[in-house]
Amino acid sequence: MEIYHGDILYSENREKLNVYENSYIAVENGLVEGIYAQIPEKFSGVEVTDYGRALIIPAFSDLHVHAAQFIQRGIGMDLLLSDWLNIYTFPQESHFADPSYAEPIYEAYVNDMIRHGTFHACIFTTIHRHATNILFKKLEEKGLRALVGKVNMDFQSPDYLCETTEESLRETEIFLDEHSGGERVKPILTPRFVPTCSRELLWGLGKLGKKYQVGVQTHVVESRWEAAESLRLFPDCRSDSEIYEKAGLLGNGPSVFAHVIFPTEDDLRVMKEYHCTAVHCPDATNNVIAGIMAVDRLHREGLHLALGSDIGAGQQNGIYRQCAAAIKLSKLKEFYEPELGKTINIADSFYMATKAGGEVFGNVGTFEPGYVFDALVIDNLEDEGHPMTPAQRLERFCYAGDDRNIIARYLNGSFVRNA
Amino acid sequence: MEIYHGDILYSENREKLNVYENSYIAVENGLVEGIYAQIPEKFSGVEVTDYGRALIIPAFSDLHVHAAQFIQRGIGMDLLLSDWLNIYTFPQESHFADPSYAEPIYEAYVNDMIRHGTFHACIFTTIHRHATNILFKKLEEKGLRALVGKVNMDFQSPDYLCETTEESLRETEIFLDEHSGGERVKPILTPRFVPTCSRELLWGLGKLGKKYQVGVQTHVVESRWEAAESLRLFPDCRSDSEIYEKAGLLGNGPSVFAHVIFPTEDDLRVMKEYHCTAVHCPDATNNVIAGIMAVDRLHREGLHLALGSDIGAGQQNGIYRQCAAAIKLSKLKEFYEPELGKTINIADSFYMATKAGGEVFGNVGTFEPGYVFDALVIDNLEDEGHPMTPAQRLERFCYAGDDRNIIARYLNGSFVRNA
Repeated sequence: MEIYHGDILYSENREKLNVYENSYIAVENGLVEGIYAQIPEKFSGVEVTDYGRALIIPAFSDLHVHAAQFIQRGIGMDLLLSDWLNIYTFPQESHFADPSYAEPIYEAYVNDMIRHGTFHACIFTTIHRHATNILFKKLEEKGLRALVGKVNMDFQSPDYLCETTEESLRETEIFLDEHSGGERVKPILTPRFVPTCSRELLWGLGKLGKKYQVGVQTHVVESRWEAAESLRLFPDCRSDSEIYEKAGLLGNGPSVFAHVIFPTEDDLRVMKEYHCTAVHCPDATNNVIAGIMAVDRLHREGLHLALGSDIGAGQQNGIYRQCAAAIKLSKLKEFYEPELGKTINIADSFYMATKAGGEVFGNVGTFEPGYVFDALVIDNLEDEGHPMTPAQRLERFCYAGDDRNIIARYLNGSFVRNA
Repeated sequence: MEIYHGDILYSENREKLNVYENSYIAVENGLVEGIYAQIPEKFSGVEVTDYGRALIIPAFSDLHVHAAQFIQRGIGMDLLLSDWLNIYTFPQESHFADPSYAEPIYEAYVNDMIRHGTFHACIFTTIHRHATNILFKKLEEKGLRALVGKVNMDFQSPDYLCETTEESLRETEIFLDEHSGGERVKPILTPRFVPTCSRELLWGLGKLGKKYQVGVQTHVVESRWEAAESLRLFPDCRSDSEIYEKAGLLGNGPSVFAHVIFPTEDDLRVMKEYHCTAVHCPDATNNVIAGIMAVDRLHREGLHLALGSDIGAGQQNGIYRQCAAAIKLSKLKEFYEPELGKTINIADSFYMATKAGGEVFGNVGTFEPGYVFDALVIDNLEDEGHPMTPAQRLERFCYAGDDRNIIARYLNGSFVRNA
């Protein structure tokens, strides 16, 4: 049993932030036991770690990130998607055929995740199974929670980054076999997106999904081009999402759809039916995609939304910064497309970044009793003589803070050293 | 004479970045003498400071910032302009009636400017002359270049933050008298914006501008509401800009117009005629204003554009981050209003952030011979084993770097200690 004192803040829903100023959070066997204004008698004698006026918040969940693109963060950002893919991303990913090339990049990526307080992530790697296993192992060793997918591409892809259908399915099945016992880190099927996957591949992955009871992550209606190309390739389907549905890829585990900028009514139907997570990656869609997710409208439709860094289309790991970026983009969405919804606030975006995103990984992302104490201690946000409320400090952290404000990290209830 | 070695990068125009890899920049009496691939014989014996593969770039210019709002950075960002002004900004600014309240905030602001490499700034304070003088002195002592304006507000302003017309003009004239000999830091007239200034005040400031030969900074067509309100109040004028022209405020010194999001043809005419600087503040307009400057179109019209942090509507001091934000917003501008221009690139935005902005302060902002060596040394952007070009490193710094990447600062040719 451990007890931590500070200003405790977490999300239970997207309506409001739960704030417990000057309070105590009790942690038993790595799980939240409860939050108290005063230490209950039953815990007298338990040592208290006092963080004073610092915020104690749940660690972040990154629901869409390309770990192999960590090496290209913040480069080529003035290009549009197709150039950015062909000039930077595809050549870069092809190097991951060599595990010794991959190793230091994945090491740097995982350390950077922890530094920025991201303890749970849905991760795309590349088509290469051996390199993917290196990342898998690093995440396991650090104690992080993740869904990791070897990428599938067998169609309309550059020669140097393309598998045969057979090879793609075989390598994926080996990958699933290798990690069938994964506890905190688990495999997830990862067809890159419809335009780089043949029908045979998608339907084959659907069979694997059923056989191994494993979910899927991919990019869905991320650009007008991509949405149109999907329908051109699959004229028997009414939406990008329906292709995955018909392939049998949905309902076997979490379904995580990145971007969802141009959904049709049929996309919405599928996402509701299978409780898909639609991942808003504000920096990334702003940087290389152009277009803004209709967060407010999708929330009102009842969809499950979370946030993603989408490195390397997004430039950095901090999901707190995506909380700010999501609010910013929602203002422009309201300005340009008021029929698609209103400006969101910090309660909305922090909910997406923590509890909503965390749901995909199990009992993480909030401080309700029984949830894992994956937590960050955030400090040094106030100017001397100018006290701020906990919610204001959270907002300033998201907009203007950085990893230096994270003064302590707890993962599975344990203090993280050397972050 | 001093010589610095590194990868030297600066803007001469907005078409391209001038890059001198592995080169030497010679500085004589604080001014750039020249850049050399090898040390010329005439300089043999001069000590060389070797920054290896680090970038050496000009320091940044912030053409629009509210120093008094530094204390509220990153708070209330989900509000829109009128609420943000009435709930946070106006009450906050009213405290600056007390110089002892102002002093630590201005001290923190100036230190933060330097930390982020902003060495030249056009600064709004508040209506309070005494507090403004505190900031003025701090900027002078540090050796920074700035145009500083005591704000004028005599109309449609809250009781607690409103002057009489007479008082506003009298205090402004005293302020101009006090600083008439200013060398690096100079006064500038600062009517907040048309909706808070009476006709008598604006025309009175115009007379002061002529008498003291001093320029003006203000907010111009920053929102649809503001633009319409200006025309309602001044039905004899065709544009926000023409009001300032008719008041006699233009042509007496630099004219610095913040935001310029909804310019009419007449605004463009005035801005061209008086070589006004239109200041793009991407984070700020995204945060509380909503609307995007048509950077590409205004550049093609021949306007002079620069960048601003617009703290506290903007959340932080780093103008490098505004270089990235300007590119991001230009992508959305092209997406939503393609007729108003195309995506800009890092050469465009770095030019605005350095040479174009610097022009307002004299011979700063570039490394052409005769310019002041106000410089930043930027390092630790490459991942081991993955060398990047200087332009790529600049881009990564703007998108994903922070003040920790600024490993040395030179102001007026001298190394800055304790930044």
